[in-house]
Amino acid sequence: MSIISLTTDFGTRDGFVGVMKGVILGIAPDVKIVDISHGISPQNVKEASFVLARQAGYFPPHTIHVVVVDPGVGTDRRPIAAQIGNQRFVAPDNGVLTPLYEIAENDGLPLEIVHTNDPEYWLEDISNVFHGRDIFSPVAAHWAAGVELTDLGEVIEDPVRLQSPKPRKVSKGIFGQIAHIDQFGNLISNIHRNDVGSAQVASVDVYGVRIEGLVRTFGEREPGSMIALFSSNDFLTISVVNGNAAKELDAATGDPFEVAFK
Amino acid sequence: MSIISLTTDFGTRDGFVGVMKGVILGIAPDVKIVDISHGISPQNVKEASFVLARQAGYFPPHTIHVVVVDPGVGTDRRPIAAQIGNQRFVAPDNGVLTPLYEIAENDGLPLEIVHTNDPEYWLEDISNVFHGRDIFSPVAAHWAAGVELTDLGEVIEDPVRLQSPKPRKVSKGIFGQIAHIDQFGNLISNIHRNDVGSAQVASVDVYGVRIEGLVRTFGEREPGSMIALFSSNDFLTISVVNGNAAKELDAATGDPFEVAFK
Amino acid sequence: MSIISLTTDFGTRDGFVGVMKGVILGIAPDVKIVDISHGISPQNVKEASFVLARQAGYFPPHTIHVVVVDPGVGTDRRPIAAQIGNQRFVAPDNGVLTPLYEIAENDGLPLEIVHTNDPEYWLEDISNVFHGRDIFSPVAAHWAAGVELTDLGEVIEDPVRLQSPKPRKVSKGIFGQIAHIDQFGNLISNIHRNDVGSAQVASVDVYGVRIEGLVRTFGEREPGSMIALFSSNDFLTISVVNGNAAKELDAATGDPFEVAFK
Repeated sequence: MSIISLTTDFGTRDGFVGVMKGVILGIAPDVKIVDISHGISPQNVKEASFVLARQAGYFPPHTIHVVVVDPGVGTDRRPIAAQIGNQRFVAPDNGVLTPLYEIAENDGLPLEIVHTNDPEYWLEDISNVFHGRDIFSPVAAHWAAGVELTDLGEVIEDPVRLQSPKPRKVSKGIFGQIAHIDQFGNLISNIHRNDVGSAQVASVDVYGVRIEGLVRTFGEREPGSMIALFSSNDFLTISVVNGNAAKELDAATGDPFEVAFK
Repeated sequence: MSIISLTTDFGTRDGFVGVMKGVILGIAPDVKIVDISHGISPQNVKEASFVLARQAGYFPPHTIHVVVVDPGVGTDRRPIAAQIGNQRFVAPDNGVLTPLYEIAENDGLPLEIVHTNDPEYWLEDISNVFHGRDIFSPVAAHWAAGVELTDLGEVIEDPVRLQSPKPRKVSKGIFGQIAHIDQFGNLISNIHRNDVGSAQVASVDVYGVRIEGLVRTFGEREPGSMIALFSSNDFLTISVVNGNAAKELDAATGDPFEVAFK
Repeated sequence: MSIISLTTDFGTRDGFVGVMKGVILGIAPDVKIVDISHGISPQNVKEASFVLARQAGYFPPHTIHVVVVDPGVGTDRRPIAAQIGNQRFVAPDNGVLTPLYEIAENDGLPLEIVHTNDPEYWLEDISNVFHGRDIFSPVAAHWAAGVELTDLGEVIEDPVRLQSPKPRKVSKGIFGQIAHIDQFGNLISNIHRNDVGSAQVASVDVYGVRIEGLVRTFGEREPGSMIALFSSNDFLTISVVNGNAAKELDAATGDPFEVAFK
């Protein structure tokens, strides 16, 4: 039995996600469908890439993750399917899978990408504005139903990649950026626990505010306190206990996030 | 294996949708449940009818679509079940299925409607305020589990119908209305691609603004541009690329949407 | 086939719920997962307890309800699993199951609670901030897959309980409180139909407003009318037809809700 996950910027009011599920179940009736998010900010490819990359690894092997954040729908941007490690992905070729390519390349995992240009695996009538329904869903369903990746289209070697700054180590710390602001206003940086390594964090500086030391979890401080801690995916994060750090600091992704070591 | 889809105005905070699913799975454990929307504007039967009619056709044959937008709950409005073409529907008899009746009648599809008044297929205790849980969900589940439509209650011939204006052809164009405003602020008219036929659209006029010509998709214009195009369901639509046309124009459903041909 | 329901304050934007489902399906591939709510107000244990207690009884026997509203994550608060009547629960030991304990005790139902401290049934790596993913989901999945409750950890007899005021009967009425305000602004009291019994309600007083008599359902009054009626779970409730009583009255949970009998 296969699993297909869905990540989109479609919201849930107009039924766009429901219709994708109808299409999938018409082709692959036994598949299980799991929503990851339909609340990605409209057209925000980078946000989708962040959310997907941090969640995909927790799914069973062979899960097919469909991502439809697709400002280029109906233009000549390619629809693609990718086998990355033991997970599978169907998405527009707009860079949304970049962090997953990087993980695969760093860890020496299998990585194979196909331009899903064989209309045999699309719906018969293709709109110019909703490839989530007409291309990505049926391609994912056929893949789940047993079609081989390389039968879905032609192998490509040049997928589009997003550029994103890497954290930079300095003598007594790391200079990073805010990579993502989640729905609770937590500021999640691009600085991973492995970047810190055996060093000890003395303080984090964001927007002229200095947060001294790290806590392990929210319950260690009083409500309203601003804290620094590792997120559930091991990235350094600024939070306000029971509050909203992004609102307090008027924060935006891409802004500096500086860590000083002891 | 059967599919039941759900469309309601219940939102997702208080668990009203979850409890419907619990009831369904207690009666029909093997059914697959798909959410179409729980964000229909409260009591907005017309909006629900628009969303459902445009999505239902993409589901596999025999899918049962449950719609609970039900301002008359607990009054003498009838609960109904309907076979329309190869799809099935369970809903209050308040007109929410009107566009589906019209499609069936225009296309000569099977259309059979039953007043689901046999309490054998309801929950034992019936509240006056939540027939989604107490009547519509169990009726749909029994239908999915194999009960015949005509065993659910008495056949009726006089379902309630919503009145909605049809587009009117004039010598060099079509006068229509805004039928729906989606969550992204797109203004979707009641003018179908078939109404335009082989004519060529010169311009669309809404709220004193003239949009010249049609584009095929969003990516053909710069962010912020107001465009006219066919929606994913082939209705003429006004959008702002990466923006919100409804907010820019202070738009409302029912307002004029005028098309001029070349 | 087993059912697992999910109730959290995670929202649906960042994929936290999706990742829990990925973890569950990796351990128990045949389970059906149903969302009850992911819109519980952040950290609001009482709200979660209200929503869950009123919905759980409609699910099939042996359903496992996972609740993750967990301000104490990463501290020494215990993760627990509980068999309550024929339903099952996995949650932090913060009182969120209190109304269910009370129902079981009042009705003489089975009640067995375990501190799920056996890491064999957790994920291998445990974060300090996301036990929904790392502990509650895998514990629920292993339970669904056939592990015995008492193998998940040690039986406990002293679960944390929330204190909540009970309605107080007076000579000609009942003094209660607003227990919950739902997403439509309905004020749901803690006064059950059984508390009223055979008495007849003359009026309800909230915030200095007197609502005379009860109606059976919304359709009995004009839009905009303030009404008193029994909710779908048989609690006395104040509503505005097609409106929002909480906004009109600036209401808050815990405030007085007084009923006078005829």
